[in-house]
Order: sequence, then structure tokens, then C-alpha cells
Amino acid sequence: MAAQSSNSNQLKIGILGASGYTGVELVRLLVRHPNASIALMTANAHAGKPYDAVYPHLGGNDLPDLIKTEEASWDGIDVAFCALPHGTTQEIVRELPGDLKVVDLSADFRLEDIATYAEWYGHEHYAPALQGDAVYGLTEFYRDRIAASRLVACPGCYPTAALLQLLPIVAAGQIDADDIIIDAKSGVTGAGRALKETSLFAEVAEGIHPYGVAHHRHAPEIEQEIGKLAGHSVTVNFTPHLMPMNRGELVTTYVRLANGVTADDLRQTLIERYADERFVRIVPEGSTPATRHVRGSNFVVTGVFADRIPGRAILVTAIDNLVKGSSGQAIQNMNLMFDIAETTGLEQEPLFP
Amino acid sequence: MAAQSSNSNQLKIGILGASGYTGVELVRLLVRHPNASIALMTANAHAGKPYDAVYPHLGGNDLPDLIKTEEASWDGIDVAFCALPHGTTQEIVRELPGDLKVVDLSADFRLEDIATYAEWYGHEHYAPALQGDAVYGLTEFYRDRIAASRLVACPGCYPTAALLQLLPIVAAGQIDADDIIIDAKSGVTGAGRALKETSLFAEVAEGIHPYGVAHHRHAPEIEQEIGKLAGHSVTVNFTPHLMPMNRGELVTTYVRLANGVTADDLRQTLIERYADERFVRIVPEGSTPATRHVRGSNFVVTGVFADRIPGRAILVTAIDNLVKGSSGQAIQNMNLMFDIAETTGLEQEPLFP
Amino acid sequence: MAAQSSNSNQLKIGILGASGYTGVELVRLLVRHPNASIALMTANAHAGKPYDAVYPHLGGNDLPDLIKTEEASWDGIDVAFCALPHGTTQEIVRELPGDLKVVDLSADFRLEDIATYAEWYGHEHYAPALQGDAVYGLTEFYRDRIAASRLVACPGCYPTAALLQLLPIVAAGQIDADDIIIDAKSGVTGAGRALKETSLFAEVAEGIHPYGVAHHRHAPEIEQEIGKLAGHSVTVNFTPHLMPMNRGELVTTYVRLANGVTADDLRQTLIERYADERFVRIVPEGSTPATRHVRGSNFVVTGVFADRIPGRAILVTAIDNLVKGSSGQAIQNMNLMFDIAETTGLEQEPLFP
Amino acid sequence: MAAQSSNSNQLKIGILGASGYTGVELVRLLVRHPNASIALMTANAHAGKPYDAVYPHLGGNDLPDLIKTEEASWDGIDVAFCALPHGTTQEIVRELPGDLKVVDLSADFRLEDIATYAEWYGHEHYAPALQGDAVYGLTEFYRDRIAASRLVACPGCYPTAALLQLLPIVAAGQIDADDIIIDAKSGVTGAGRALKETSLFAEVAEGIHPYGVAHHRHAPEIEQEIGKLAGHSVTVNFTPHLMPMNRGELVTTYVRLANGVTADDLRQTLIERYADERFVRIVPEGSTPATRHVRGSNFVVTGVFADRIPGRAILVTAIDNLVKGSSGQAIQNMNLMFDIAETTGLEQEPLFP
Repeated sequence: MAAQSSNSNQLKIGILGASGYTGVELVRLLVRHPNASIALMTANAHAGKPYDAVYPHLGGNDLPDLIKTEEASWDGIDVAFCALPHGTTQEIVRELPGDLKVVDLSADFRLEDIATYAEWYGHEHYAPALQGDAVYGLTEFYRDRIAASRLVACPGCYPTAALLQLLPIVAAGQIDADDIIIDAKSGVTGAGRALKETSLFAEVAEGIHPYGVAHHRHAPEIEQEIGKLAGHSVTVNFTPHLMPMNRGELVTTYVRLANGVTADDLRQTLIERYADERFVRIVPEGSTPATRHVRGSNFVVTGVFADRIPGRAILVTAIDNLVKGSSGQAIQNMNLMFDIAETTGLEQEPLFP
Repeated sequence: MAAQSSNSNQLKIGILGASGYTGVELVRLLVRHPNASIALMTANAHAGKPYDAVYPHLGGNDLPDLIKTEEASWDGIDVAFCALPHGTTQEIVRELPGDLKVVDLSADFRLEDIATYAEWYGHEHYAPALQGDAVYGLTEFYRDRIAASRLVACPGCYPTAALLQLLPIVAAGQIDADDIIIDAKSGVTGAGRALKETSLFAEVAEGIHPYGVAHHRHAPEIEQEIGKLAGHSVTVNFTPHLMPMNRGELVTTYVRLANGVTADDLRQTLIERYADERFVRIVPEGSTPATRHVRGSNFVVTGVFADRIPGRAILVTAIDNLVKGSSGQAIQNMNLMFDIAETTGLEQEPLFP
Repeated sequence: MAAQSSNSNQLKIGILGASGYTGVELVRLLVRHPNASIALMTANAHAGKPYDAVYPHLGGNDLPDLIKTEEASWDGIDVAFCALPHGTTQEIVRELPGDLKVVDLSADFRLEDIATYAEWYGHEHYAPALQGDAVYGLTEFYRDRIAASRLVACPGCYPTAALLQLLPIVAAGQIDADDIIIDAKSGVTGAGRALKETSLFAEVAEGIHPYGVAHHRHAPEIEQEIGKLAGHSVTVNFTPHLMPMNRGELVTTYVRLANGVTADDLRQTLIERYADERFVRIVPEGSTPATRHVRGSNFVVTGVFADRIPGRAILVTAIDNLVKGSSGQAIQNMNLMFDIAETTGLEQEPLFP
Repeated sequence: MAAQSSNSNQLKIGILGASGYTGVELVRLLVRHPNASIALMTANAHAGKPYDAVYPHLGGNDLPDLIKTEEASWDGIDVAFCALPHGTTQEIVRELPGDLKVVDLSADFRLEDIATYAEWYGHEHYAPALQGDAVYGLTEFYRDRIAASRLVACPGCYPTAALLQLLPIVAAGQIDADDIIIDAKSGVTGAGRALKETSLFAEVAEGIHPYGVAHHRHAPEIEQEIGKLAGHSVTVNFTPHLMPMNRGELVTTYVRLANGVTADDLRQTLIERYADERFVRIVPEGSTPATRHVRGSNFVVTGVFADRIPGRAILVTAIDNLVKGSSGQAIQNMNLMFDIAETTGLEQEPLFP
């Protein structure tokens, strides 16, 4: 029995890179999306296989077989999700039909300044002409532009969590934008399904360590967006850690308050800013965000704490890196681009315990 | 924003014991059920609290506050889910209004023979008059009786997995019902949220051990149902193991084949038996069930393997103990009892990775 | 076969509170210590039991049965380890024979200022007269005083890690002691074997969250020791997180450099300070500490990183909270107190994978 | 400071394949072995690197750098441990000096019948002339032959656990050797450090599944040894499962008792058989083996349980797959081969919690 029945009211979806973890998360969410039908899926290494040969748990959903990118026919497809590795997407998107809407989950179009891109990613931008068309897909901040855009560059998982907690208070001038310390912790799915020694169970279980200290590629994304609101170029401390869990990301951020501002003021700013946002929750004083409270869902939970050091405060945000941190936010953006209610297909409750 | 809007077409639900893990799983599923509205929740130890004080991840769902059992008013409630500890439910159900439908997740009404109950649970049955009304809630086998019943006794998690794999082949006379060895492995949520040393993280992580060897209370349930189809009283080996994972249950069963029967024959019997069942999947030869392929979903996945020992076969079944193994199956039964499409509210895909 | 043979050259050891996790870790290490013999073990809740009824994995070691505290006879005992809950040790130590050496693993004698103790622990100090005798057992910093003392107050696990990384660079005036942000991550054994909902497997696995934000009791310990070297009272940010792992603690600390000081300078200070320390390793530039690199061992591993924010640096330290963070350091101190080579009984390599 | 000082009384050790998990476990144990000095280590993929570039946690041990196999000079080396992948060892051992003792941890010399080897491993045996010299290294059963041998083929991890529990009772004629069902559960390190999708954290965590059902290569090893004692060729059911843990292996075996034999009889046979064995413990009735009770140690723990099915019993054995299941048993064998006390270097207590 097929979970989906295709009809004329449904968007026809193509997924480039459907065999990775962000790809399969798109599939998990889209097969239950009432306005979407997956019509095309690519995965070069698995071309020719039925999807449940790669991900048996999604069997029974009447999905198209996997094909190579070059075999894809885009006729009749409304939107392409690109869940490809960083550095490979620019060239592929460049060749897609000009009227095909694109939601990109890679980093390839996130940095507005192509020189910054080249500096952090080690090669020239392969589609500079397209970069100007790209909208940074932080839904709660670029809603109108996303709705009108052809190409959305979804934020990285860490920037999503960090920016949602920081942008409103930077915009309000409540913190010193030049003294932001972001200590982040992520589950292993953030590294994808690629075969890396550092992703092996025995290398990760029962332990924690930082990685990419002071040179993780999500830093310039965060700086780009904070800099816009701060009104000047900023440099942040961003220190991610790898955790023995599948999903989930916790961002603990240490900020210096502007004169006279308190942690309560920050909390109040966030409560007001997100009052009408379905997916963003600010927990009351005394309550603490935890990644398990958002597992499998598109929710973002943030808490604010006074620091013992006078003049400082602590922000803690939890997301599921595969949902709000990538595939869920991508679908949220797709909904906007096609004038579908923004929460459609994303209303699952968190899975706990 | 409330996730549910109560209206006259919706069932009014009461949950007794809403603060345990099967309770919160009922809530997770019911807040997204289009025909259900949670109207009443009890949890004696947490009475007076809002639900999100106990389970913050389900905040924002406009749920009633927790109350004590004796404070519950059943006027206008259509169905009560009992997610109470074993041994406490009989007395409580006995006092409920006679026209209130009851879906019980405890073991209190599962054993048809009250002497067997007394033997395994250490006390006389407190509601023997009601036992005759109870229907064993293994949905795929008692669908008609469940639909017509007032009191459904949902199977234990292990019996659900074991019986779904065994009953069709016992009924077909394809295996020796007196030589069934069930080696089961469960995640820790099967032990509930009670404070037990054996459920502490450090006692469970990075290890495995069997428990209740040869005297686990799920054995008589399995024997009751197999015995009915075998036509005589049977004794099974049932050996559960505690695993370092939250959810999921794998049942590996070793059976002796009847003369001339092959493992392929078993698989074929299961394929035919479950051809029209939405939640039950029989994987093809060469494919292997895994608990992570059903995580968070109501699906049951079963594989059949030839043994190297001539005349024997191996059955492997995976379920999520909190969904098909308890709260999901309970809702499936509720749907039947109220003539709602059986899969309503239970169509979530598995959460992997 | 007994693992230990008691003889006249061996210290006779008493352990108060042998049934907790720091207690069992003392036993694990001491049964292999060539100069120690466990002669007495208390555990009020398990009095009368053989030790392997509580911890089967240590069977075969010819250990004394567990007794109640009040049943203990201290004749002939050389040293008592107190592995009791915080707040209970002061009264017990007060009643011990005056010539019995005591290594305390609790927090009861760590804070030199009894007013600070009362403020953080919620009650007056019960043995103020003894506080003056207590030496803070951070081995690498108080070696001489520990060797001469009767009562050693072993540091908390977090302070051990944080102070070993910070004290040399504070002493050198290389960082601003008033702008120290300590983001810490710990395994669950740090919470002990007590039955707490927050220590249940299903509440911890597959997730992370901070706890005790801005009011964790290890903060005043850290401040006490840093303040001494800074020459003035300091306040630090200390934010611990609970991780899904048994053992291990990672402390990521963000510091502001004094004028002209670089991250390399900090590393050089630490390398020089710890050049002769067997258990303290400073990793070279480009290498990253991980908790799994110290699992089960008394080692401390620290790395130093330049921050992208000019004038800041990052320190990362990993320890095993049950070894160097408690029981291992306690034994290291005992060795000093009895003029035994300091590394005796503590030379196990880390257990990885 | 070097952990080892090489002197003339110490064995000079060579390790072929030192970069895998059994290799590093050899190193962990041997650096603390009082009679051993590691003189040579190969790892073709890492040749030229210092060992702590591959395994930082073993830094500070004054180990030789990694070299290629062909660069190894065997002059002065007393014994070679081969921790190489299956199928590669026969050719390498064939070329080693004839007077070099060899302890092989691979499967290459375990099967006495080279036709059986070819059937299960898919190629002809590359060193058939050497096979006759090889002794199966199940220490507790082949002690004398191991002591006298030049080439020891250490058993697989699963066979070690299964045979230690089964051989005495098969020898005693207490069970039916043709009705043995072995349900095994292993941690992920059993799969080694090779890059395989199935070993990725996100593919293993929070789940369990069987693998190699009815065709795992450890079956013929088990059958070879049981067959010898049974006096005829036997076929066993052997069904391994992959568990979300690093180390540890639990083998739950279901046996049919000979007429008149009880589970107590089995336990008594095992108690007597292993009364003088330092590493083998038979737990009393009512106690249950757990893998965490042997973690990091060379111990084997076995329990025996009566089955509810008349005439059947259950055996449960726990080992650490990397210690008694491979590298620990290998060192135990080396001790025998060089007339060193058998437990030397292997007396670590289990690491729990």
C-alpha cells in the first residue's frame, strides 16, 4: 500500500543526494507531507536500486528508484532539494532548468561574499552568477525573501541554532557582538553517512571531544548574519564538540551584556520576537533546554540564564540537527516558496523517551 | 497555539497514569490524532502540575493539568487508557463507569485464567467478574472482538512481537509448538520511569545481560495464545535481555519445523497472512530486521531464516516497544472500538538515523 | 584465589561508603595496589552483604563484608577513605580516631572558608575545628602539604580538570582571572549510584543538557583556588552538561589573554609546569584531547588553541571523573601521605576502544 | 617517562597489524606486562608514523614507530603477534623465520581441515603445510600443546565464549550436541576499525539486529571443537547480533539435557572443571552474568539456568571480546609458550561502571 497518492494538487519533488542522512530525513518527512509527492531521487553510488534497498525502514512508500544525477529529467518537477556534499552543488545547480525552484541543504550558497566562500572552502565559487539569487534560508528571519526566491540556501545546523538565539538580542543591541562564545555539541549524524574513521561507533561512543576548534566552516555563516545586524564585521568563537548520540545539537552561548541589560531582558526580547513562531519556544526561567526535548521534531527550544560573572549571560538552544537543522527547515522553506501553510508536514511531536 | 482543537466529532480521552513512559507515548500520539482530544490525565505523584512540568517536550499542546485518580470525573469521556503499574489496574477499572470503554496497557487483564494470573502475579485477581469481558488486544488477531468490546487488555511488548511472528505458523501446523525458544532483547524504556538501580544509565550503558530468565511474566501470555492454536497447553522458553538503548525490541525465535516444512514455507505463510496488514512487514530473503527500522513507529518487521541445523528455522521480529509494543497498539485498538480507520494517528514513519 | 595477600608491609585501608561509584572505583584500584590491603568497608544500606553481592565484577578478591559505619573498628587501620555523600562526612570524620589518616572524596572539607561552605551547602559546617587541618588534595599543587597532612579533601572532578589547566597560567599572569568561562561536560557516573530520575538511562541516552547553570557547587572550589593565585576574589562562569556516557569529563575553557600573550605562550607555560608530572600531558598543537583517551586511567590531557577572536584562547582538558577526578587522585594522595611512590597502583593505560 | 624499560629478561615482541583494535589492545596490555617489551610494530597504512599519532591515548610509552610488514627485521624478536585481517595471515606467517614463535589472532589457522577452511573463507589455504603445526589457542583446553607449539591460532571471540561454556558439558555427555542454539550479542569493536557503513555510530546506536544469520564464520570453529568431544560431526545454530556498545560479548545458549541431567548438574560440572582457572568464574544460582562485569578484563563469567521447557537448560557467558576474546587470550598463550606465569599482565579488574 502506498503512503502517498500523487495528484494534481501536489508538488512534484526531486531530491538530489537522497542516500545521505539529510536526504533520508527529507524522504521521512515528505512521504507524510499532504502536498508533496517525491517524483525523482538521485544517489550516484546507489543508482538503479529501489530506495528501500538503501533505507529499508522507508519501504512500503511507493518511491521512485534511485538514479544518477545525469539521468534526471526535470520535466514536471516543481522543486529540487539538493542534499549533496559541500562543494558539489554549485556546478549541479548551475545546470538545472532556470525555472526549477531549488532548496539547497549544502553550504554552497550560504556565504554571500564569494571571497569568503573561497577562503573557507578552498576553491573559487563555481556559480558566482547564481550566488546573488540565493536567499539565506533561516526561515524565521527571511520569510518574505524565501517566499519570493528561486534558490534558497538553508543554513547549517549550528548556525540555525546559534542565530535563532542571537539575532534578536544583537538586533536589540543588548549584547556585545564582539564577545560571543559559542560552545556547541552535536550528535554524529551531523557528519553524514560518509565512511570516516571518526564516525565509527567505537570512536565516538562513551566519549566527547571538540573538533574543528577555531576553524569550523559554520563560523563565517554565523558571523555573516550577526555582522549584518551588528552593523560591522564580527568574529565569534565557535567550538563544536562531537557527542555519542545520533541526533541533536545543543548550543551554549556566553555573551557580554550591554550596560544595564539583564538576562531577563534577553529572555523577554526572545519571547516577544518569537511569540507567533510555531517552532520556536523560549522556556521560562528555571527550565532548561535539552536535545531530547526536540528529537525528531522541527522545534527549537531556548533558555536564558544569568551568569555569576556580573554583566554576562548564558543562552542555551536545542534543535534536532536533521530536522530544524537541515531537512525540516528545508521543507519549511519549500512550504513558503509554494504558499503552503508553513508548518505543513512538520508537526510531529518530539520523540521522547 | 494548541495542537488540538476539541470539537464534537472527537473522542474525549482520559489517561490514567499519564506520567509514565507508556503514558507519555499515548500523549505523543494522541495530540496528533485527528479524532481524539485528551480531556483528562491522572498521575498521583504529580497531581496539580501542568503536563509540561513533567514532560517539557510536549509543551504547547493545550493539555489538561495532571490530577489524582480519585479526582477524575468521567462525564463525557469516551474512553480511558490505563497506563498504570501492573497489579493496580483491576481495582481501578472495577470502579469506572460501566459504559466507559477501557483500553488497558497493564498486564492485569491479559491472562484469561485467573489462577494463572494469581500464580504469576502473586495475588488473587481483584476483578474476576471483569476478566470475562476483557479481550486480548493483539489487534491483527482479535480485530472483531476488540471492535465489539468494552475492555481491551493490550498485550505485553514481548508477546506482541513473539505472537505476531509465531501465531500464523503455529496455526498452520508448521512448527513444533513444544520446542519454541524465544531470545528477546529490549531497550530500557520497557522498565518504565520507576526509580530502579537497574535502570540507571551507568548500570545499562555499554553492556548487556539477561534478566528474569525462565520466570518473566510475559511467558504465560505467550503460552496462552500459542496454546489456543496448538490445541494443547504449551511451555515456551522466553529469555529477555536488557540492552543499552531507549526503544526497540528484537525477538529472535528458534523453532523446530514440522516434517517437510522449510523456512521458505514459514515466510510464505507470514506473507500471506499479513498481506493486508498496514503495520506488519515480512522482509524478503536476504534482508534482516533491525529495531532501528521501526523506531518511533507502529510497524512490525519480521524475517525468516533457514537454520544450519536441519529441520530448524529462525524468526526475527523487530518492534518499537512503546508503540506497537504498547501505546501505538492501544490506539490502534481504540480506533477499532470507535469505528475509526485503524491506522489513524499511527502513520508516522520510523525515525532513522 | 585472593588477589591480595595481606602482609605487614601493606597499609590497612578502611573505606567509608564503599557501595557508591567512587567507592567501587577505590576498590577496583586498591585491590591491585601492591602496598594496600582493604581491611574494612562500610555501606549502611548493604551492611552484612559480601561485596560481590553489590558489585559482582569484583568477586574473587577476598574482600571484607560490608558493615555499618558504627560497626567499624579502626584498630590497626592506617587510613580511611571517605566516599560518602556531601554533608555527611564532617560529622563522621569528627568522630574518627585522631591518629587515623583520612582521605575524603566528598565536598565537606574542600572550602577553606566555612561561611562560603554554609552559603553553598545550605547548613553550617559540622566540624569547623577540623577544617583548618584539611589540605586541598590537588596533588600536583599541594604535594608537600598533602604528604604532611592528616586530612586531605580531594577536589571535585570538575575543579580537578579546570584547575590543572588554569592555575599555571593564572599564576603566570597570562590570562584575565575575571573573564574565565568554563563549559564542562560529564558522564553520568558523576551523579553517583543514587536513584534519581535524571540518572535513568532513558532520561540521559541520546541527548545532552546543561544543569546547575550558574549555581553548581564546584564553582566556589574553582574560585577559591584561582583567587589565591590571582591575588583577589574571582567569580568564574562554570556551566556543566550531562552527557550520555559513563565516565569522562571534558572541560572547555575560554580565556582572555593578557596583553601580548598568545595561546602558544599558555601551552609553553603548561608544558614547563608539568614536564615532570607523570599523569599530566599537554598535547602538541594540532592534537585534540578526548575523554576516551583517558578512560579508566589517572591521566589528564590538555590542549591549548588560539581563538579566532583576537586576544582570546581556548583550553581543553579531559579526565576520567572516577579516576583523576576522584578515586585515583585520592589514592595518589594516599601514596604521598605514606611515602609510597606516587604513581603506585595508578599506572593503568586508558581503555580504548 | 617510558613505561617500559627493555632488559635482557624481557621477551622482545613484534606486532603485525598494530593499528587495528586487536592490535591496540595487545599494546595496551603489553606495555604493562613485566616480561615483555614491544620491539616492532607494523601497520602498512600508517607506516612511518609514531604510534601515538594513531592512538594518542598510548602516548608516553616509548614505543617503536610503525613500519611496513616488509620492513620488519625479526632478528632478536622472540614472538610475533599477528593481528592482521582474515585471509592475509597465512602468506605472511609462511615467510616468517622458522624459529619465530607466532601467536595469530586471525582466523587463518583455526580450522584444522583445510577443505572446511576453503569452504567458509572462499579460497584455498595459502599455507597448508603450516596448518598441521598450528594449535588451537583455547587456553584452558590446550594448555600443554600451546606451551609446546610454535604457532598458536587463537580462537574467535564468539567461539571462546561458547566453547568455554559448552566443552565441559559436551565432554560429560550431559547435553545433546546436535541441538545447540547459540544466540550471541557483541559490541561493535568485534568488527574492527575498518571503514564499513555498518560500523558507523548512527547505524548502530539505539538499535540491535542479527547479522550473518546461519552463515557466520565462527560456526565451523565451534563445530570443530564440539565435534571432537561429541565424537561425531555436529552442526550448531549460531546467531550473532550487533549491539550498541564498544566491548563485550554475551552468549546465551539453549541446550537439550541428556536423560536425567539437570541444570544444576551442568553448573556443577562447570564449577569443577574450572575450579583452578583464574579467569573463569561460574556464578552461583540466582546470579546473572553481564558483559559489564568483565569489561576490560580477561575474565569469563558463566551462569546456568533451568529452562521452563522440561529437559532444557540455558547457559549464559560474558567476555570482553577484545581481551579474553582476542588480545588477552593471545597474551595468556604467549605466557604459556615462554613459561611465564599464565596470568602475568592480565590481572586488571573489570572497569565498571
